Amino acid sequence: MNDYGRKAALAARKVREKKPLVHHITNFVVMNETANITLACGALPVMAHAKEEAAEMAGQASVLVLNIGTLWPDEVEAMKIAGRQANESGIPVILDPVGAGATAYRTRVSRELLDEIRISLVRGNVAEVGILVGLDAKIAGVEAAGRPGGEREAAVAFADKYGCVAVVTGPVDIVAEKGNVLSIANGHEMMSNVTGTGCMATTVIAAFAAVNDNMAEAAASGLAAYGLAGQIAASEAKGPGTFHALLYDAMANLTEDEIMSGAKIDEIR
Amino acid sequence: MNDYGRKAALAARKVREKKPLVHHITNFVVMNETANITLACGALPVMAHAKEEAAEMAGQASVLVLNIGTLWPDEVEAMKIAGRQANESGIPVILDPVGAGATAYRTRVSRELLDEIRISLVRGNVAEVGILVGLDAKIAGVEAAGRPGGEREAAVAFADKYGCVAVVTGPVDIVAEKGNVLSIANGHEMMSNVTGTGCMATTVIAAFAAVNDNMAEAAASGLAAYGLAGQIAASEAKGPGTFHALLYDAMANLTEDEIMSGAKIDEIR
Amino acid sequence: MNDYGRKAALAARKVREKKPLVHHITNFVVMNETANITLACGALPVMAHAKEEAAEMAGQASVLVLNIGTLWPDEVEAMKIAGRQANESGIPVILDPVGAGATAYRTRVSRELLDEIRISLVRGNVAEVGILVGLDAKIAGVEAAGRPGGEREAAVAFADKYGCVAVVTGPVDIVAEKGNVLSIANGHEMMSNVTGTGCMATTVIAAFAAVNDNMAEAAASGLAAYGLAGQIAASEAKGPGTFHALLYDAMANLTEDEIMSGAKIDEIR
Repeated sequence: MNDYGRKAALAARKVREKKPLVHHITNFVVMNETANITLACGALPVMAHAKEEAAEMAGQASVLVLNIGTLWPDEVEAMKIAGRQANESGIPVILDPVGAGATAYRTRVSRELLDEIRISLVRGNVAEVGILVGLDAKIAGVEAAGRPGGEREAAVAFADKYGCVAVVTGPVDIVAEKGNVLSIANGHEMMSNVTGTGCMATTVIAAFAAVNDNMAEAAASGLAAYGLAGQIAASEAKGPGTFHALLYDAMANLTEDEIMSGAKIDEIR
Repeated sequence: MNDYGRKAALAARKVREKKPLVHHITNFVVMNETANITLACGALPVMAHAKEEAAEMAGQASVLVLNIGTLWPDEVEAMKIAGRQANESGIPVILDPVGAGATAYRTRVSRELLDEIRISLVRGNVAEVGILVGLDAKIAGVEAAGRPGGEREAAVAFADKYGCVAVVTGPVDIVAEKGNVLSIANGHEMMSNVTGTGCMATTVIAAFAAVNDNMAEAAASGLAAYGLAGQIAASEAKGPGTFHALLYDAMANLTEDEIMSGAKIDEIR
Repeated sequence: MNDYGRKAALAARKVREKKPLVHHITNFVVMNETANITLACGALPVMAHAKEEAAEMAGQASVLVLNIGTLWPDEVEAMKIAGRQANESGIPVILDPVGAGATAYRTRVSRELLDEIRISLVRGNVAEVGILVGLDAKIAGVEAAGRPGGEREAAVAFADKYGCVAVVTGPVDIVAEKGNVLSIANGHEMMSNVTGTGCMATTVIAAFAAVNDNMAEAAASGLAAYGLAGQIAASEAKGPGTFHALLYDAMANLTEDEIMSGAKIDEIR
C-alpha cells in the first residue's frame, strides 16, 4: 500500500467540504447523469451552453467541463467563450473529446479547443486520445474499438504533445503528465454497460480538480473513488439499470476509509 | 388537522381522473425526469420547443410550463409564442426561472417573460424568486446559496409585485398570493441530492393547476403530494440513485388517504 | 407454438454477436434511455445531430434511427442528410414519427422524410401511424387518445401506401408489410407509465433490423424480446421508477431460452 489511498481520501473530503461549482457545456445524452454524479461527489453542477451567458457562468465556477458528445456550431462557440473566461479566471478546463476520430468534425473541434483554450486535462478512451495524437486507433461511434491496450502509450503521447494532464480510461485507467504516469485499477466492467459512464468519469475528475492543487493526483483520486463506487454498485446490481441507480448511491455513500483502503493507484514510471 | 389534507387528496384525484396535457418548454437536464413525474401524477407530458409548433402544441394543452434551465434565444422565442397562445386560450402559465440571478441573461429573460406573458404562477428557490424582486440573495449556479430563510419574504414580495401566485420551495415550501400565504412542511432533505427535483416540483404544481380552480390551493396540494412521495421514497432509499427511482414509484402509488392524513399545509397569515 | 420464438432467439443472438452501431438523430427527452436500451440489447448507440457530421456518422452505422420527438429545423435538415447517406450506404432507416398529427409541423416533417428518404420501417402508436395515412385518429400531445383498436388497420394501410414495414405498438403490437401481418402479444401495461418506452421500442427494432435480413421478422423479434423484458421487469417492480431501472436489467439478462419460449408472435393473415 502506497500513500495514494490517503491522498485520494483527503481529496474526496475536500470536494465534499468545498462543494465546488462545476460548469458543464456538455452533451444532451448525459446531462442529467453528469449533474447527478456531480451532486453524488458532493459538488454542485450547472449546465449552461448559451453564448449569451457562457462567460458569466464560467466566471462563477470552480472548474469548466467541455464535452463534445453532441456538439453543434453554436455550442462550440459557447465552449470557446467559456474556455477563454476560465483561462482568464485561472480555473481548470477539462476536455472530454467524445467521438474524436469518429467524424472529421469532432476531430477538428477537439483540435480547435486544444489550440485556442488552455486545456488543463483531457479525458477520453484510448481511441479518442490516441487519434488526437496521431496514433493508429479505431472508434465505433463513440466507443473505442479494435484490440485493447495502448492506454498508457496514448496518454503519455498526449501529455507530451499538449503539455497537459492526459487521462485515458479503460480496464485500467491511466493518468499521465510530463515525467509522471499513474495507473488506477479500480472500476468494474459493468460500467461499460451504461451510457455516459465515461462522461461521468470526466465530471468526477473535474470536481476533484476544482479543489485539489495537484491535478494528476486529483484525477487519480477521483477515478479511484468513482471506480470504487462502481465496484460497490456492481456487487449489488442485477443488471445495468439497477447498477446505474446504485452507482449514485455508492458514490454518495463512499467513506474516506473505503477510499483509503480500496484505492488502487500506482506510479508506473 | 385542517381541511387542506382533504382538499389535497381531492386535487390529486382530479389530476388522475382528467389526465391533463402538460406542455413543457424546459431544460435539457431534466426533460426525461419531468416527463416521468408528470406521468407519475397521472397527467400526460409533452415536450415541444420549436417555434414552428409552440403555439399549436400549447393550444391543445391544459397548462404550459416555461423552465429556463438551459435557455437559448430560439427557445426563449418559442416560450413567448407558446405563452401568448396559452394566455389567449386561458390556460395557466407556470414559470420556473432556473438560475435567475446567476447570469444577467437569465434574469433578463425571466423579467421579459413576466412582462410579456401573463404568468399564473412562479416556482423557484429563495434566491431565484428573491433576486427577481430585488431582495438580497445569493445563488451558486442554479442552487440557492448563503444563509437559509427568507422563503416567506421572497414569495410574498413576488406575489405582491407581479400579482401572481409565488411558490418558493425549500425546507418548508411557501405558496403566496395576495392576502394569503400557505406553508407546506412535507418533503425530505434527500430531494436536494437529486438534480431536477425543483423542476419536478414545478411540473407537479402545473399538473395540479391544470385541473383545479384555486391555483394557490392546487400548488399547495401538489407540493404536499410530491413531498409525501419524497418522504416515502427516502424511507426506502439507500442513496440518491435509488431515491430517484423510488420517487416515481411513490408518486404513482400515493393514495388519497395518505395525502389526506400526511399533507402538512397551513395558513401562515 | 410456431417457429417465430426460435427465430426471435436467433435474432437476439445476432444483435449480441455483431454489436451493430445504431446512429440516432432523436429527441432530447429520451436520448439517455434510448442509448441505454441499445446497450442492453447488445448493440452500440451513437447520438449525433449536427449537420456537419450527420452523413459521416450515418456512413459508419449499421442502421439509422430518425425520431422527431423534439424536432427543430436544423435537426430535420440533419435527418435528411443522414437519411440520404444511409440510403446510399444501403443501411435501414427507421422512422419514429413522434406526435405526428399533434401539430401540422410534425405531420409535415414526417411526410417530407417519407417522401425524400427511403424509409425501411416506421414505428408509431395507432394515432401517429393512422393520421399519416389519413385515418381518423386522435392524439393528445404524443399519446394516442380516443378509443383503442385500429392498430392492425393503421399498420396495413401504412405498409400498403408507403411500401415499407409498418409497426404500430399498443396493447398488442402489429408488424405489417405487403402481404404479411404479424401480431406480438408481449409487453406489459406498466410500460405506458414510463416516458420513452415507445421510442425505446423503435431503438430495439433498429438494433434487430441492423443485423437480420427479414425486416418484418426482425421487428417482431425485437418487440417480443423487449416486451418480455417489460413483463419480467413488471413482475419485480413496485412502480414506474423501479420498473424503468429493471427494464434495462431484464433486457440485458434475457436469455435465448426465455425468448424462444416466451415470444408470442403470430401471423394474423
